[in-house]
Amino acid sequence: MASMADESGLGKRRANYVPLTPLSHLQRAREIFGEREALVHGRRRHTWREFHERCTRLASALSALGVRPGDVVSAVCPNIPAIAEAHFGVPAAGAVLNAINIRLDPGTIAYILEHSSTRVVLVDSQFLPLVNAALEFHEGPSPTIVEVADPEFGFPPTGRHIEYEDFLAGGDPQAQWRLPDDEWDSISLNYTSGTTGRPKGVVCHHRGAYLMTLGTVITWEMTLYPRFLAVVPLFHCNGWCHTWMMPLVGGTIVCCRNINAESIFDAIRRERITHFGGAPIVLTLLVNAPNEPGYAFDHEVRVFTAGAPPSPSTIAAIEDRGFTVMQVYGLTETYGHVTECLHPPEWRDLDTDERYRRMARQGIRIPVMEEIDVVDRETGDPVPHDGTTLGEVVMRGNPVMRGYYRNPEATEDAFAGGYFRTGDIAFRDPAGYIQIADRLKDIIISGGENVSSVEVEAALMAHSAVSLCAVVAKPDETWGETPCAFVELVDGQTADAEELIAFCRRRLAGFKTPKTVVFQDLPKTSTGKIQKFELRELAKSL
Amino acid sequence: MASMADESGLGKRRANYVPLTPLSHLQRAREIFGEREALVHGRRRHTWREFHERCTRLASALSALGVRPGDVVSAVCPNIPAIAEAHFGVPAAGAVLNAINIRLDPGTIAYILEHSSTRVVLVDSQFLPLVNAALEFHEGPSPTIVEVADPEFGFPPTGRHIEYEDFLAGGDPQAQWRLPDDEWDSISLNYTSGTTGRPKGVVCHHRGAYLMTLGTVITWEMTLYPRFLAVVPLFHCNGWCHTWMMPLVGGTIVCCRNINAESIFDAIRRERITHFGGAPIVLTLLVNAPNEPGYAFDHEVRVFTAGAPPSPSTIAAIEDRGFTVMQVYGLTETYGHVTECLHPPEWRDLDTDERYRRMARQGIRIPVMEEIDVVDRETGDPVPHDGTTLGEVVMRGNPVMRGYYRNPEATEDAFAGGYFRTGDIAFRDPAGYIQIADRLKDIIISGGENVSSVEVEAALMAHSAVSLCAVVAKPDETWGETPCAFVELVDGQTADAEELIAFCRRRLAGFKTPKTVVFQDLPKTSTGKIQKFELRELAKSL
Repeated sequence: MASMADESGLGKRRANYVPLTPLSHLQRAREIFGEREALVHGRRRHTWREFHERCTRLASALSALGVRPGDVVSAVCPNIPAIAEAHFGVPAAGAVLNAINIRLDPGTIAYILEHSSTRVVLVDSQFLPLVNAALEFHEGPSPTIVEVADPEFGFPPTGRHIEYEDFLAGGDPQAQWRLPDDEWDSISLNYTSGTTGRPKGVVCHHRGAYLMTLGTVITWEMTLYPRFLAVVPLFHCNGWCHTWMMPLVGGTIVCCRNINAESIFDAIRRERITHFGGAPIVLTLLVNAPNEPGYAFDHEVRVFTAGAPPSPSTIAAIEDRGFTVMQVYGLTETYGHVTECLHPPEWRDLDTDERYRRMARQGIRIPVMEEIDVVDRETGDPVPHDGTTLGEVVMRGNPVMRGYYRNPEATEDAFAGGYFRTGDIAFRDPAGYIQIADRLKDIIISGGENVSSVEVEAALMAHSAVSLCAVVAKPDETWGETPCAFVELVDGQTADAEELIAFCRRRLAGFKTPKTVVFQDLPKTSTGKIQKFELRELAKSL
Repeated sequence: MASMADESGLGKRRANYVPLTPLSHLQRAREIFGEREALVHGRRRHTWREFHERCTRLASALSALGVRPGDVVSAVCPNIPAIAEAHFGVPAAGAVLNAINIRLDPGTIAYILEHSSTRVVLVDSQFLPLVNAALEFHEGPSPTIVEVADPEFGFPPTGRHIEYEDFLAGGDPQAQWRLPDDEWDSISLNYTSGTTGRPKGVVCHHRGAYLMTLGTVITWEMTLYPRFLAVVPLFHCNGWCHTWMMPLVGGTIVCCRNINAESIFDAIRRERITHFGGAPIVLTLLVNAPNEPGYAFDHEVRVFTAGAPPSPSTIAAIEDRGFTVMQVYGLTETYGHVTECLHPPEWRDLDTDERYRRMARQGIRIPVMEEIDVVDRETGDPVPHDGTTLGEVVMRGNPVMRGYYRNPEATEDAFAGGYFRTGDIAFRDPAGYIQIADRLKDIIISGGENVSSVEVEAALMAHSAVSLCAVVAKPDETWGETPCAFVELVDGQTADAEELIAFCRRRLAGFKTPKTVVFQDLPKTSTGKIQKFELRELAKSL
């Protein structure tokens, strides 16, 4: 510490030091935005006063059930009110929220419940069979199930567990929250959907979540009273922290239980949605929606996209539908988005192709992130900003996880060298914008040259018949590996392998052009990420 | 701390814990907004890259002069580039910036330089005589003077001290910054312009300054690239932290050396100013400016007003001139504004008088402030939200000072009871909005009833002939005290005491109506606060 000549009386005290936590936002929203709409789900509507009361009841009911500070409470829910409330009610009990991916297999869910020592799990009625199947694998004391019914959407209570509304009714609406006495306290645990091996539990703290909410307001150029559609699953990096941000700006959270074009466009029109996030696969859904009045809107809708690099064509198409889109990039380990593809006003003067190429970059660090660089994996030196030299993306800042739960070895690996190592390979353009070339393991090495699967995919996506594609390495005796493309076509359109290969050859160097094209549905994770490891296995057998 | 069952590997490290400091904003601005305009002063213009370099040179030159972390560097400057740069360059050397009020007398300046153990002082050429006079009172080793000339504005260098530009030229543009290793490190020291007794030195830290910048973006509904006019003196609560905020949003700081209507309107038009702050006295300047084309503009200009409660009439008049105004309230001890008079959309439907009355309230806490309440001074209980019961405004949150420098006793007094006690008397309306009735010492007690001088002043301000007024207690044999009004009239208008008293009687209870009205120029501090203690002395002798 850089002490002044006399520091007497200048220490921390209750009046001038308060641990940072997004729970503060909800306390303020109750005071200031009390009668404004906080949450919408179908015909249900709650004000911030009601939302605050429900979260307080949840915290109180969890404590009454024996949940202690530092304990883990899990949720297996789509984007329904209970999981939004759990983002405040669980930490208000001093506990740690573990939102579990609803598309996982029972074995993995059992692993997560056990590894996290989950005390209580909130389960949407639709996913009770999944959790029950998981609990058959479960060893040790089973967590208590609180069932969350959603009758309006076709999931009435089964009657086999205490139902969420009854659980809340048993909580004290006046209970004192258990605010963190250290902002380094854990607020959430998120198991990464590892494509191989056991998932790792990413531990996040109150400080990082708080700062993310403040930084995101700036990144999204958000002013007061946004109407936010929760499309990104809250089990995916806590929905990029957006739920925690809404009370800060007096916004409204509109739940999106079913992710499809119809319900998204419907919400945009009827609820006057102004902001939502979604993986490129969601954008593709919207782009391919019918061009009918029911799928049009006349106000500004700002969209964050992340989870996979969108192609310039996807960005162009989503802008054509009237959306204002910005790509952001991050990982579960970084609370979601920590770069933003900031669109300077000067870009408006660029020709369209160049503008969309730039918008397809991952961009620069968001305000609350300290340092993001691309470094040579051997020397650790930053790569030049030349738009070609590849290196690994490394990061440093407050929105970086505490570490992996019960896995200090993986934590040390991830933090080797004083940075969080993302495992993503990228270059930087002359403006310093980062462009992800690939996941480390997705790079194709053909004839000794690095081929970015993302670059080949972008070339394919520019073809009007291609709806979605993924390019992976196919082992090759001559070249070591060659690019192999898996393609989904737009409904009603046709194209053959020869045509697509010729199309790519006009846009790419020979060694980057796919040698093989396969037409099939692509395997995807719940967050819209294409499961390349499956495709790589497939490519080997072709 | 609420520990999880296993905390191994989850500690703080360089990759995931970075002390909060506004210096981070400038590092990011250099990376991202490098070629955008950072600073304008007359014909001078600097980009963020240049501004960063100048701050780095300043930090380096200060270190070379022997300034060590924790040392105090002072500035006696109006709003010129050097003081904006000092807000970054001084802390980048690990030192603490003490921006001194240029309107103080030499004796007080000598006291401040000594009390703060100032090592180096940056002095604008115009104020060299003042500082030289101060140094004649100074005991112990004198601080090194760096003279800041401003030839374009009529203040060429005297040649008697090293000049700021030469000082920067001697600094290393590549020097490493001395970033805080503890966010509790001091960033600034601000001596409050105490109306009686010696001024107290308010110590602020990097954490609070950082959070204020993030919170203010939300309060001011600011998006990217604002053009900010520095009207509020940077020696007053560091200009409410706005200079630290500008690199965060890629904005431009336009210096306002001379605070008068002409230069403000000129900057608004020529520099397309979008945001500035000013005390009500500055608003009055603008309201009373000629209604000529040179004093008109056609874009949105958002104005924060603070420093004294503006009357509803001042708010109405400033809106009529085309400004969007919001009142904020705070103290030097709270880094400036910590409440905002948030204007909910519903207020648009109110009748005009009621809307302006509400806009004259100080409002509710800003996003990064934890708790603000009005409490009974005897019991400490919160007052009801009834719009009448008076109590003291108390606060708690991260943007609250560390304490008073070398004055632990005053610090303990200020923090008695776990809150920062403001000494301001207020009530809360049914929506929870705070309205300051008075400084504790400005309350008038007439016939046992509390009379808020602010309320009486608002009544007087509604009279078209009144330009400015102040109401203080006048000792009275019968009533103990009675309200005594001092009034400045609008140029060319007339009114006599009888008329104003009658005007007030139609609006106020009898015991609140002034019994005495005096027409004269009001004594003011440099920040536009009317010096009521002088008027109280005057009232005694009437």
